[in-house]
Amino acid sequence: MAPQNRFNHRKYVPFAPVALKDRTWPDQLITRAPRWCSVDLRDGNQALIEPMSVAQKKQMFDLLLEIGFKEIEVGFPSASQPDFDFVRYLIEENRIPDDVTVQVLTQARPELIARTYEALKGVKRAIVHVYNSTSVVQREKVFKMDKAGIKAIAVEGARLVKEHAAQHPETEWVFQYSPESFTGTEVDFAVEVCNSVIDVWQPNPDRPCIINLPATVEMATPNVFADQIELFCRQVKRRDSVVISLHTHNDRGCAVAAAELGVMAGADRVEGTLLGNGERTGNMDIITMAMNLYSQGIDPMLDFSDMDKICTVSKACTQIDVHPRQPYAGDLVFTAFSGSHQDAIKKCLDLYQEGDSWEIAYLPIDPRDLGRTYQDVIRVNSQSGKGGVAYVLQSKFGFNLPRWLQIDFSRVVQKEAEVTGQEIAADKIWTLFQSTYLNAHQDVSLDNFTFEKVGERERFSAGLNCFGQSLDIEGEGDGVVDAFVEAIKKATNIEFEIMEYGEHALGQGADAEAVTYIQLKHGLERYTGVAISRDIVSSSLNALLRAAGQLIEEARQRSAA
Amino acid sequence: MAPQNRFNHRKYVPFAPVALKDRTWPDQLITRAPRWCSVDLRDGNQALIEPMSVAQKKQMFDLLLEIGFKEIEVGFPSASQPDFDFVRYLIEENRIPDDVTVQVLTQARPELIARTYEALKGVKRAIVHVYNSTSVVQREKVFKMDKAGIKAIAVEGARLVKEHAAQHPETEWVFQYSPESFTGTEVDFAVEVCNSVIDVWQPNPDRPCIINLPATVEMATPNVFADQIELFCRQVKRRDSVVISLHTHNDRGCAVAAAELGVMAGADRVEGTLLGNGERTGNMDIITMAMNLYSQGIDPMLDFSDMDKICTVSKACTQIDVHPRQPYAGDLVFTAFSGSHQDAIKKCLDLYQEGDSWEIAYLPIDPRDLGRTYQDVIRVNSQSGKGGVAYVLQSKFGFNLPRWLQIDFSRVVQKEAEVTGQEIAADKIWTLFQSTYLNAHQDVSLDNFTFEKVGERERFSAGLNCFGQSLDIEGEGDGVVDAFVEAIKKATNIEFEIMEYGEHALGQGADAEAVTYIQLKHGLERYTGVAISRDIVSSSLNALLRAAGQLIEEARQRSAA
Repeated sequence: MAPQNRFNHRKYVPFAPVALKDRTWPDQLITRAPRWCSVDLRDGNQALIEPMSVAQKKQMFDLLLEIGFKEIEVGFPSASQPDFDFVRYLIEENRIPDDVTVQVLTQARPELIARTYEALKGVKRAIVHVYNSTSVVQREKVFKMDKAGIKAIAVEGARLVKEHAAQHPETEWVFQYSPESFTGTEVDFAVEVCNSVIDVWQPNPDRPCIINLPATVEMATPNVFADQIELFCRQVKRRDSVVISLHTHNDRGCAVAAAELGVMAGADRVEGTLLGNGERTGNMDIITMAMNLYSQGIDPMLDFSDMDKICTVSKACTQIDVHPRQPYAGDLVFTAFSGSHQDAIKKCLDLYQEGDSWEIAYLPIDPRDLGRTYQDVIRVNSQSGKGGVAYVLQSKFGFNLPRWLQIDFSRVVQKEAEVTGQEIAADKIWTLFQSTYLNAHQDVSLDNFTFEKVGERERFSAGLNCFGQSLDIEGEGDGVVDAFVEAIKKATNIEFEIMEYGEHALGQGADAEAVTYIQLKHGLERYTGVAISRDIVSSSLNALLRAAGQLIEEARQRSAA
Repeated sequence: MAPQNRFNHRKYVPFAPVALKDRTWPDQLITRAPRWCSVDLRDGNQALIEPMSVAQKKQMFDLLLEIGFKEIEVGFPSASQPDFDFVRYLIEENRIPDDVTVQVLTQARPELIARTYEALKGVKRAIVHVYNSTSVVQREKVFKMDKAGIKAIAVEGARLVKEHAAQHPETEWVFQYSPESFTGTEVDFAVEVCNSVIDVWQPNPDRPCIINLPATVEMATPNVFADQIELFCRQVKRRDSVVISLHTHNDRGCAVAAAELGVMAGADRVEGTLLGNGERTGNMDIITMAMNLYSQGIDPMLDFSDMDKICTVSKACTQIDVHPRQPYAGDLVFTAFSGSHQDAIKKCLDLYQEGDSWEIAYLPIDPRDLGRTYQDVIRVNSQSGKGGVAYVLQSKFGFNLPRWLQIDFSRVVQKEAEVTGQEIAADKIWTLFQSTYLNAHQDVSLDNFTFEKVGERERFSAGLNCFGQSLDIEGEGDGVVDAFVEAIKKATNIEFEIMEYGEHALGQGADAEAVTYIQLKHGLERYTGVAISRDIVSSSLNALLRAAGQLIEEARQRSAA
């Protein structure tokens, strides 16, 4: 496809894994939600083609509060005037609830730290998040500094953060430090830098600091990240006074996995964004990680029950569409097109009762939890089978087709799907069902009928309109249908038997209509009739007539030929 | 946000992890690409709102060949007439290259297996992929069968597959079995079923069979999947005659991680799709997993160098857009908006030479490898700093701004970005650069000049047009610029000194223009001048005049006031 010299893997150096043979994280289970911090308004915002306006920031902030975030990074006020203004707005307009802590990012540079505290003046409680780059590439190529120089930047930043904080005792300050590009930093050096910062801040269990370990660039498989985190957690000072935070990016498509394994490896806190917005491939998607916990019976401590609103507001603020396959949020993620999937979902849902634990094939969670509905789950195209068709008829139109009719009708739908090459919408399925069964084969009908019980037997007599001819018929049998069958057989001299019979009410209540499904067999052929009526007797007789009508017509054609 | 009864984690049961304390996969590294199998035309296709037309299938098949896939699942011919027709087209029109094997899926049911072989008649080599559901939920709720019954379906399917194959010895048959919903199946039962299938097929190292272990629904963290795979690999019969294949789905957003850890746990082969198309949240994205290997210096055995074409064809066939943050493929994944990121990328790229190993901050791979360019990497908005602006001017317009001018000009750009609230396109940066420097401050110009070397000193005399007035000036100095400075000082009685001076050719070749950047200092104020000319002397003098012109104008205004 390309000149060999362009697509060349040889210029890349494999990531050197962490030597940690006695790792314990693979045996851990996550049993409660980590502390969450949304960075939608900072990392997410800085990665947009058009950053959010103040109006959009307000909308996003309100959404984050509604979802239940208690820690929100609201900007990089020392680097951007709009961010500065937004922080001032939040504080001056008293928009920060008492149980919510805002966080702001700053590089470890004196003038930026000073400006950061200017932005935060008067805030009740805030996390000051200071960072500098510690990775090998950043040291050697960007800052051209040795380890000591890099560590000195961190320590001086930590000192200034503490010094400024001391000048504003009216605020409850929390300090956070990130060795940026942690994934590209030797773990022992990251520990050394962080321990120096911890020495400056002197946290204790009542006033812990946060050490945030960013996978600024995702550089290896997520188990390697977990090894890095476990090793870091073992070596960091004052572990009981330090909140270990993760901030993963999605360059290798594994940001959620890395955060999950990182929490198993000892982290307490996770930074991320809604739907994974953020630099390049984005941040970890908090919705996915939180809903993964939810699907395991763990309280995510966040509320995503109005997923449509979350998607709408996110799109309005970021101008990025939600991918239809985005876990938990996309339009197609609760949709099954495959026939066998649809069939299995239908069977499981039929057994499911409110209050049961959720064990439904192909549906890890109940779509209703996120404000989606079952109706959206099953869609029908040429790859679909009987299950999907049956589900649509049942959930949208109340028809609970017996299995034999599911098979019969799914052939009709599949043929239509193959001809058009398109998805068959629910309404189209309904139209096909009507034209195939309900409105078909009405050439034989009852003008009048009498049904009487005579001793143990039922007797049935009627005036039949049969292809324009009037015909008086009568028969006896074991119930009305049986007697009617006998009557038709006698009048037409055609042998047949009822192979399948089903009926149910359409809807509930005294005035609900009834539907009857009948299949007759004549020789090797089968004939289907479906009819609806206010009265179960009429629906049964009409269904039988629709099936028998086909048989009678064939016989007429044979005798005419 | 929601009524408490709707968003309720308590109805979910946690996944029971696999007891495997002595796992070895976390110490493994992936050192070569697995065997890939594209399921775009089957799993991908069946999950589309509108399945591919035959024309679209041909287009997708050709793309998969171009990328280099050697195994391609082309459909489910026994379940869909279009799939059947497409398989026939491939065979009858001789579209399958000799080194490519097509694969088709079928349920383990007699009539479907028969139909499958009908579809494959005359193919040179094919993988017949037979499956049945083995998970707890499927057994109990969908099939209502015990383990023995489920195993019997698998064994009978395997037997029929072998029997049909024997009737067509002209084809080289490969058998593949999937215990569908493997992730929801007890590992020991999955092993039991697969071993029974293996007993039927009797594979040997020369004619291995494939056992495919689908994460039909992703149900736990990816390390648990790896545990399942390692345990399975230990217990399966005839391991040397069995190719272990993975087929992961993305319900928890970890399909790539699961496949990677699964390969570390012993799998040989991976099924997936381009960009992760597939049922619900999709399949594993083969592009991401393959490019993850590529980024570690491992030959992915697939060629993604024309990523734009891949995205265009995928979109045409699936009618699903590529998300801008889709790893390796999205429009924004090589874009840095943040100033510090842009700065670091620029510094690393400046040091990078063709042939070096790729170690660039924030860019895990070289965008050029995928047919993307550096120009797309850095985009400028109000969150950007000097690095991005400088990069755009350098890469698109050839101006290599000195650091002091980067700072000066980035303030201009940032102000513009903050005012408009929008991304500043490259052309806008250029317009701003022109209006701020190149086309500004032309009120002082040279009518004529003479420059002569007198002994060790240079002597400069000129006719100056200064705000409409003609002025004869002359001065001596150490070089032309120094002499010119002296001349201006003498004529205007204004003290200033040159703080910064830089120049370079714009482009290469003898007729390239030159650009000069000059910064003057007068008291505490600084004045910048930039000029372009065919001749380095003219560009230097003009740059100086543009800077000095501002100084002279201020002096005139002061004296006028």
